Amino acid sequence: MIEIDWPERSEPAPWRRDGGKVVVCVTIDVDAESPILARGDHYAEHLSTLSHQAFGPRKGLDRLLGVLRSSDVPATIFIPGETAVRWPSTVEAAAEGGYEVAFHGFSHRHPVHLSADEQRREVDAAIETLTRFGVDPVGYRAPNWEMHSVTLEHLAARGLRYDSSLMDDDEPYVLSLAEGRLAELPPHWSLDDWEQYFFVPEPDIGQRIVPPSQVLQLWSEELEAMRRWGGLLVLTLHPFLSGRASRARALEQFIELAQGYDDVEFATCDEIARRVLADQGEPIAP
Amino acid sequence: MIEIDWPERSEPAPWRRDGGKVVVCVTIDVDAESPILARGDHYAEHLSTLSHQAFGPRKGLDRLLGVLRSSDVPATIFIPGETAVRWPSTVEAAAEGGYEVAFHGFSHRHPVHLSADEQRREVDAAIETLTRFGVDPVGYRAPNWEMHSVTLEHLAARGLRYDSSLMDDDEPYVLSLAEGRLAELPPHWSLDDWEQYFFVPEPDIGQRIVPPSQVLQLWSEELEAMRRWGGLLVLTLHPFLSGRASRARALEQFIELAQGYDDVEFATCDEIARRVLADQGEPIAP
Amino acid sequence: MIEIDWPERSEPAPWRRDGGKVVVCVTIDVDAESPILARGDHYAEHLSTLSHQAFGPRKGLDRLLGVLRSSDVPATIFIPGETAVRWPSTVEAAAEGGYEVAFHGFSHRHPVHLSADEQRREVDAAIETLTRFGVDPVGYRAPNWEMHSVTLEHLAARGLRYDSSLMDDDEPYVLSLAEGRLAELPPHWSLDDWEQYFFVPEPDIGQRIVPPSQVLQLWSEELEAMRRWGGLLVLTLHPFLSGRASRARALEQFIELAQGYDDVEFATCDEIARRVLADQGEPIAP
Amino acid sequence: MIEIDWPERSEPAPWRRDGGKVVVCVTIDVDAESPILARGDHYAEHLSTLSHQAFGPRKGLDRLLGVLRSSDVPATIFIPGETAVRWPSTVEAAAEGGYEVAFHGFSHRHPVHLSADEQRREVDAAIETLTRFGVDPVGYRAPNWEMHSVTLEHLAARGLRYDSSLMDDDEPYVLSLAEGRLAELPPHWSLDDWEQYFFVPEPDIGQRIVPPSQVLQLWSEELEAMRRWGGLLVLTLHPFLSGRASRARALEQFIELAQGYDDVEFATCDEIARRVLADQGEPIAP
Repeated sequence: MIEIDWPERSEPAPWRRDGGKVVVCVTIDVDAESPILARGDHYAEHLSTLSHQAFGPRKGLDRLLGVLRSSDVPATIFIPGETAVRWPSTVEAAAEGGYEVAFHGFSHRHPVHLSADEQRREVDAAIETLTRFGVDPVGYRAPNWEMHSVTLEHLAARGLRYDSSLMDDDEPYVLSLAEGRLAELPPHWSLDDWEQYFFVPEPDIGQRIVPPSQVLQLWSEELEAMRRWGGLLVLTLHPFLSGRASRARALEQFIELAQGYDDVEFATCDEIARRVLADQGEPIAP
Repeated sequence: MIEIDWPERSEPAPWRRDGGKVVVCVTIDVDAESPILARGDHYAEHLSTLSHQAFGPRKGLDRLLGVLRSSDVPATIFIPGETAVRWPSTVEAAAEGGYEVAFHGFSHRHPVHLSADEQRREVDAAIETLTRFGVDPVGYRAPNWEMHSVTLEHLAARGLRYDSSLMDDDEPYVLSLAEGRLAELPPHWSLDDWEQYFFVPEPDIGQRIVPPSQVLQLWSEELEAMRRWGGLLVLTLHPFLSGRASRARALEQFIELAQGYDDVEFATCDEIARRVLADQGEPIAP
Repeated sequence: MIEIDWPERSEPAPWRRDGGKVVVCVTIDVDAESPILARGDHYAEHLSTLSHQAFGPRKGLDRLLGVLRSSDVPATIFIPGETAVRWPSTVEAAAEGGYEVAFHGFSHRHPVHLSADEQRREVDAAIETLTRFGVDPVGYRAPNWEMHSVTLEHLAARGLRYDSSLMDDDEPYVLSLAEGRLAELPPHWSLDDWEQYFFVPEPDIGQRIVPPSQVLQLWSEELEAMRRWGGLLVLTLHPFLSGRASRARALEQFIELAQGYDDVEFATCDEIARRVLADQGEPIAP
Repeated sequence: MIEIDWPERSEPAPWRRDGGKVVVCVTIDVDAESPILARGDHYAEHLSTLSHQAFGPRKGLDRLLGVLRSSDVPATIFIPGETAVRWPSTVEAAAEGGYEVAFHGFSHRHPVHLSADEQRREVDAAIETLTRFGVDPVGYRAPNWEMHSVTLEHLAARGLRYDSSLMDDDEPYVLSLAEGRLAELPPHWSLDDWEQYFFVPEPDIGQRIVPPSQVLQLWSEELEAMRRWGGLLVLTLHPFLSGRASRARALEQFIELAQGYDDVEFATCDEIARRVLADQGEPIAP
């Protein structure tokens, strides 16, 4: 029986405002071409599939940011290093819009498939790339949510504040690592748009498209149920997917639903991470 | 034309109370990390996927037991040996809550993929593990519902009372094996949450997530139809899946629906197995 | 550019009664274990999966025939030779109930994956097997709808009246083959229950389960639309799938819908084949 | 980090009439047997699967053209060279009905899987084939939307007016290539019927069938949302899929919905391509 080397976790400081039951973190992963090219250099010649991905930086991100802006909703934008290099406008738009910019690896290769050195270089290169844009990222999300302990430790070593890749809770918690503390803000496959909307013929990384109204249903049911048990609802969107018109409309409807509830709050990942890591007793702004 | 070596089966003793048409057995398989690690030791480094599974023992099981407790519904908790070792709190919570504890193999490897010796060791090790918790399990469910005749015979040899892995009926029956009699309580893929909710990128053991309301629809239609033809509805839940908020709410709604019918009864697997194996004519408590 | 050797086809004789727009042929494929065992002898030890299939002969067929009987709907029962040998009760129940019995290969291996000799032996063995039950089958359906021209010609050579395996129309037509004429009664994947309900872990021949109400929706929409354009609606059911309670109820609801329309008629495949092959001008009973 | 060689793009000339928000291009890909045979010559013996494809030229195309005609909706018919050779009636029906005829490769092999020479021969052979029918095609769509830059350049070299294979926008734009300018009219997987309706057992190129009402929902949601943000809605239909009765009815309902809006216009691809490429300031007919 093999042993699992779980990182040590502990309770978060208070992270909800008074009377609050749910915090929604809207997060946007600006993958663009990276998840395709990470599967093989030959995909650089698959023009249609790359263009499918490029819809994100060309059009989808702006549309999503427009929805957020007109709803006055904060968000965290996770950008892989390669996207920042290929599409600098994505980092600029996110930063200028006042959104939190975090990182999502450099090449979108999965930590679990990389050597320890490669894992550290992925983190370092991504931070360095964003830094050149004047961004000082404090949070990370593992490509394909395939976290490895080497990457997790390296995030702490680099002084990051939070990760959003582990799924063993629906509330935030604290990771106490050898290299320091990190807030963990758990995402989930069911609150991600990829499993509902992704289709390309190759590589084989998703082939199912459902109506946006069904996705709105899926997310709304989780929101409603979290109002009972409490929770952190980390919504994950990809501009090349959710940036399509009817899907952006579904996001807007989700936001309208959530904003109608007194016990639901929107916040960036960094805001929640700060609260989670605060000394106990520190007050939370209403 | 190859021959199938079917185990001998016979009619059950009366197993429904007077006027009853349907018995619902709520069953919970506390798989945790075992179905992932059974596919390869290297998955021990796939932190996100393991954390996806660990949601069960960390949070999902408690939430499901809470729903059951507040609805006053009995249940049977199937626990793989590895889960009992890694997460003793799961056995304790189930036993302290007054739920029946049964077993689900030791390592979640599938009987059909094991040698005869390995199959027997899986059963023995799991029983021995639960015994250390003061639990004396009387029922078994094959991992991935991949039963083999060697395992089936060994259950009888070990004096078990029932199995819940064969699908050739929607009512219980009696297996007359070389080593003794077993009640069979048939489950079905359509009454399992895995096919509706499971998604991880690797290993390739499920990639489809639908809204809980659609799953409620699926299960409710079977319940309604069983009220006509009669049946044993074995509902199978995984805490890492159905323990998420909106899915726990769907379970609750299913229970509310079922409790509204006079001809529907909830029972543990053991309760039904005892009735099934009772001498004909023995009265059933209303 | 490779050439396709299409069999010659010609127009059918009138096959709808006066004022009729749609004929519904309810067909039942009693596959039982055969599609699993056709993938490898080692599946004979996969007890759970085999039991999943055995639900058909043990319970599902009776339930489906009950629905048909109480609705007074005719049907055609396609039985693979192996099923007839393993479960003689299926042939007997179908024949005694007054249903048409046709055949579905012997071993459920796909004609396209067999040599010419094997294909002919499959047909011959299946006919011989059913003949031993006093059945004289006049129709055939290729396993997995994987027809090959050798099988098609052999059906004509054996004097069969119809096939139900080609999908290039939604009305019946006549095949003029070297060995004789056959009526073709086209089925379709969308009017089959397998794509909606089938799930087993191995072999990989289907893994998706949707609610019966969604399947009812799918079939009802085709029925409604055929009332406009006219058509032959060949509904294909598997007792191990559609024999489950809620799915049998969906069938019943489909029948109720169809029976409410004056321009919809139910008939066996043989009845339609006779009409299709009749000399032009021959009257059709109302 | 690999470089992507994006073709240069620029803004289109005005392409919507005054007050228009959405243009719908109904496009029909008459694939017939080609996507199957492109996967291997041995499929020429898979009669059922080929017949599934032949439903298109035999019946589906006529039904779809009937729906379009009675709704007075223009359309563009993309025909692979092999389909034109095997089913000349498809080109004739499209041309005689006054529809635009464009091409879809010769053999339905994907440009990304072909050498540069093969890619050019595919384009040349397809144009030559259609020319023999008196058709002078001005537009192209890559088989399986798997465009390669060699094909794209060759389209310009051959003097084509537009392509409909790239997905990085939901409005048309201009491609400025070495060999000339092309209008790009972006399609999308979510507005294609294949992902919703395609099922054959082999080859493995789709296995999921949903009710037409769900597809109508999917497309209607995109139409409604495009009325807000504006867009070009390129609807892609396959006669062997959408030509089935209930699916043709769903198309009709989609058209009825769209025709009810003043700000939605239907046009052929060629019409939009001409507008897109027109000199700025050129008026657009209302």
